[in-house]
Amino acid sequence: MKKLINAVDDVLTESLQGFAAVHGDIVALGEDNKFVRRRNLKPGKVALISGGGSGHEPLHAGFVGLGMLDAACPGQVFTSPTPDQMLAAAQAADTGAGALFIVKNYEGDVMNFAMAAEMMETKVATVITDDDVAVETSTYSTGRRGVAGTLVVEKMLGAAAEQGRDLSALRALGDDVNKRTRSMGVALTSCTVPAAGKPTFALGEDEMEMGVGIHGEPGRRRVKLASADAIAEEMMGAILTDLAAKPGTPCLLLVNGFGATPAMELYVMANAARRILEGRGFTIARGLVGSYVTSLDMAGCSLTVTALDDTTLALWDAPVHTAALRWGC
Amino acid sequence: MKKLINAVDDVLTESLQGFAAVHGDIVALGEDNKFVRRRNLKPGKVALISGGGSGHEPLHAGFVGLGMLDAACPGQVFTSPTPDQMLAAAQAADTGAGALFIVKNYEGDVMNFAMAAEMMETKVATVITDDDVAVETSTYSTGRRGVAGTLVVEKMLGAAAEQGRDLSALRALGDDVNKRTRSMGVALTSCTVPAAGKPTFALGEDEMEMGVGIHGEPGRRRVKLASADAIAEEMMGAILTDLAAKPGTPCLLLVNGFGATPAMELYVMANAARRILEGRGFTIARGLVGSYVTSLDMAGCSLTVTALDDTTLALWDAPVHTAALRWGC
Repeated sequence: MKKLINAVDDVLTESLQGFAAVHGDIVALGEDNKFVRRRNLKPGKVALISGGGSGHEPLHAGFVGLGMLDAACPGQVFTSPTPDQMLAAAQAADTGAGALFIVKNYEGDVMNFAMAAEMMETKVATVITDDDVAVETSTYSTGRRGVAGTLVVEKMLGAAAEQGRDLSALRALGDDVNKRTRSMGVALTSCTVPAAGKPTFALGEDEMEMGVGIHGEPGRRRVKLASADAIAEEMMGAILTDLAAKPGTPCLLLVNGFGATPAMELYVMANAARRILEGRGFTIARGLVGSYVTSLDMAGCSLTVTALDDTTLALWDAPVHTAALRWGC
Repeated sequence: MKKLINAVDDVLTESLQGFAAVHGDIVALGEDNKFVRRRNLKPGKVALISGGGSGHEPLHAGFVGLGMLDAACPGQVFTSPTPDQMLAAAQAADTGAGALFIVKNYEGDVMNFAMAAEMMETKVATVITDDDVAVETSTYSTGRRGVAGTLVVEKMLGAAAEQGRDLSALRALGDDVNKRTRSMGVALTSCTVPAAGKPTFALGEDEMEMGVGIHGEPGRRRVKLASADAIAEEMMGAILTDLAAKPGTPCLLLVNGFGATPAMELYVMANAARRILEGRGFTIARGLVGSYVTSLDMAGCSLTVTALDDTTLALWDAPVHTAALRWGC
């Protein structure tokens, strides 16, 4: 295992300390590193809280700030944070309008956020993301997995919360954005969890894992490495079939690197995805390319499509100021 | 070789097409893909032109836009663009106030930009970046190499050009920012150039290349893999000794991933670098962490420190709107 770390046990703490130090104008670190909180809360706004296992950076802490999340709870690598963390984050971020939990659909996360919700004495609601069309159930999930589309849900909900929507409206919006959003991924190499010290899975020199999850868990099948065009064709085919949007619908295209894929390759994939979308009569209204929802040092990427309408497009364009996403301010 | 590409010969073209499609609000692609140009030029402003071999994305095309570059010329992977490209870019971007070439100190780039400057019929000046303290001469350079500090030069010159400074003032400023900026890198793995199909160099499972260049060229020496703290100590030691800034000086810290290093590790390195800087009495006024000046799929990172003053700090903070850097607008 080759990593830029000190002791394996200190990776998460030191990474969070580095993050909080560099982005001290945007975030503050909670007691015992239980959560990363937006430095300047907006009183009267519903608090948006997310979190999950670490190793997917910049998700979620990198999305804390104006126009997106109010707090994020980092678990150990690929391990759910505890209900205690979630409760502490919600208490630190809730200014009276209640808290909305945004949870990727993995059993550990869903269970722990539900426990935290029960412990809350103030208003709380939950949105669960499950945008991954690759598999219906998997190693860590009952039902579809929540993957890179979670970024889209967090961005749009963040904008709507900033504009003053209440808790029930935000929950409904979150479910709507999640339904408009589909993703699928492919891995060219495994990730290596620091505590394990070796790759999570083994792939031959000419193989790829089609439909891989963001913890390196299996997807649809292991196949021979194909061209960018062929990979994009399969992923976009699955996404668009499932999404069942009308041709002409303006789309948001997110090409997301898993951690070890260079920008040059992500833009080759963006070009392939664009040609397929346009070939099927869709318009790319907005695009985002980069490594945002990662799987440590895994090589590969996911494609995400969100079918936009005027409301969701405006929410995407609204100002955001976080460590990993920033525009309009 | 495992890459998300189609034919090796099409990687650059398809990557540029994907880039231009996703960021069509910011950039336009020149004829025959000779250059990437800022979509909306600002008449009367000095045109800032950079470029170099591809494989370092988002450098340079990702830095084209308001407050940074006016055009960037992409060569083939790790190969200088041609004088013809540079001339076309300058002609397309120059609105009458002249053109400033920002050139990383590699022999091919320096020679070709000098030829382009001779061919120009309008005012032109050149700033050469050579921030890498690792080696005095190397495979592709006479004198120090220009590496991640080039981002800092491009950002600050871009802000100053936007504010209306003239060509000679910008050249002087560029030289000043370059002198204030020092970098050093380390590689944990080699990069693989698509056309070569195999790693540029071989590193043992327990080795790292200290002082590596951004083309995978050798650094100071090959040593056993060390802890993040020890790596940061050696790199920051070399940087700060060379920079010879007074303790108390406010600094910009750039922790730059080489392409295959996850954010979690970059923030561990940021934390290590921060502790060293603070331990020596420096203040981190600004920080930037991410993969900005890459070496394809190389694992590793570089550290860059710029000694700031009021002028350079304000230039760093000035609005920028490019594909890879955006704030203040």
